[in-house]
Amino acid sequence: MTRTVYLNGDYLPEAEAKVSIFDRGFVMGDGVYEVTSVLGGKLLDFAGHMTRLTRSLAELGMGNPLTDDEWLAAHRQLVALNEVVEGMVYLQVTRGNPGDRDFAYPPEDTPQTVVMFTQSKPGLADNPQAKTGIRVISIPDLRWHRRDIKTVQLLYPSMAKMEAKHQGVDDAWFTEDGFVTEGTSNNTYIVKDGRIVTRPLSNDILHGITRASLLRYAAEAQMQIEERPFTIAEAQAADEAFFTSASAFVMPVVEIDGVALGSGRPGPVATRLREIYLEESRKSAI
Amino acid sequence: MTRTVYLNGDYLPEAEAKVSIFDRGFVMGDGVYEVTSVLGGKLLDFAGHMTRLTRSLAELGMGNPLTDDEWLAAHRQLVALNEVVEGMVYLQVTRGNPGDRDFAYPPEDTPQTVVMFTQSKPGLADNPQAKTGIRVISIPDLRWHRRDIKTVQLLYPSMAKMEAKHQGVDDAWFTEDGFVTEGTSNNTYIVKDGRIVTRPLSNDILHGITRASLLRYAAEAQMQIEERPFTIAEAQAADEAFFTSASAFVMPVVEIDGVALGSGRPGPVATRLREIYLEESRKSAI
Repeated sequence: MTRTVYLNGDYLPEAEAKVSIFDRGFVMGDGVYEVTSVLGGKLLDFAGHMTRLTRSLAELGMGNPLTDDEWLAAHRQLVALNEVVEGMVYLQVTRGNPGDRDFAYPPEDTPQTVVMFTQSKPGLADNPQAKTGIRVISIPDLRWHRRDIKTVQLLYPSMAKMEAKHQGVDDAWFTEDGFVTEGTSNNTYIVKDGRIVTRPLSNDILHGITRASLLRYAAEAQMQIEERPFTIAEAQAADEAFFTSASAFVMPVVEIDGVALGSGRPGPVATRLREIYLEESRKSAI
Repeated sequence: MTRTVYLNGDYLPEAEAKVSIFDRGFVMGDGVYEVTSVLGGKLLDFAGHMTRLTRSLAELGMGNPLTDDEWLAAHRQLVALNEVVEGMVYLQVTRGNPGDRDFAYPPEDTPQTVVMFTQSKPGLADNPQAKTGIRVISIPDLRWHRRDIKTVQLLYPSMAKMEAKHQGVDDAWFTEDGFVTEGTSNNTYIVKDGRIVTRPLSNDILHGITRASLLRYAAEAQMQIEERPFTIAEAQAADEAFFTSASAFVMPVVEIDGVALGSGRPGPVATRLREIYLEESRKSAI
């Protein structure tokens, strides 16, 4: 089945979906994105992703080209057309095609570019990695300092993932000024003596939608949460570690820079949080 | 006249030049670029741009898709087709289109995307701004920390240019840890008591091709050069300031954060260096 994608209002075969070489997304990295997970054919945490999208756009002086209802309809249409049961819907909005390259923003009436596509991932919820946990290395955080804006400037996270792969592990955690900021495309947590520790929101990290939902569910389950930065040494000495992202949900981390954490297997807190997240987000999926 | 652009070996009308929405340049900022100036229909500092392009690609684990001779032929072809007398040739190389989005690099045999286009700028060498000088503001440098790699992740420089415009001036100089790194798309210099001061090369700044040529010409003219970081306060107290870039050559700066420098007009060192650069680079243009 050829995947159908969305481009500026049209539903097209994926091979036909093309943008101008002058698109600001292509020549300037001037675009933002969101990834919403699909389970049972429904969208997880959709409202959160829409809120963050509007915020990312506003931080860059852009409006939102579609209403939330229009976004929802397009998401649902793509999920239906591509028969996605488990997977993701990706969306990207750029400042559009000014017809030439210039550092200055184009006139405000320049139509934005809107791209959406699905990725079908059967077995996403039953990811076997959640049962074994993943291994990470730490890497200096060399990204720009507005990581709260979800831009397509993803080269460094991509380089970090490749470095992790090269070192035979699964992913990388970024460190800055001695503390962990976040993972290459996820928020990071440790668990010590039953307390969940995670870095507070700021311009230093992405304001994870899965993070927000998870912390709410954890609080509802009477779990103790401490929002403060932590070091790699502290993480290595923790009972458990995990990360959250829209497409991995809650993923246990069992080794950091070659040091096994706790039992070396996914711990009870991460395992329980993954169950809670999947259960709650399925319930509220639309 | 419709502009002819280059895309993966083809010469096309600009409106037909499109790339896949899955291109790594569009979804990941995974691409590098160069801008070479044209004066009298010839290319300035071409060898330097080719050397830096190969270095940028290598730093990102990519090869160079064309030989220097092929690049030269394509540059010349575009200059001829578009009858460019004064202006620029832009080139961009991305990691190509893997057919889907993934943080991991695609297989090494994935064809890179190669884009080139011209911008005709009659009067480039006689830019009237060089006679009045330009005004800048300082802005914190929030870019990523591999500024030596000339990637298309240009959103923050673009935001900084817009902030400068908003504040009624021409451009912005970035500062980090108390020192000037560089301008939004140029290398920065001050002149005090006849000495030219500029930040040394590192991962903190772009390794400007115009910078390298200018420092060589300045040394040949027996001018004193000191490569060390400087502060905004030091720049405001300097006799002169200027920047260099491939398309602006040598541009005097006459005001920084509202403080006029020296006489408030372009100084003799910057003016002389602009003359020398234009003369020498025209001589070696190919």
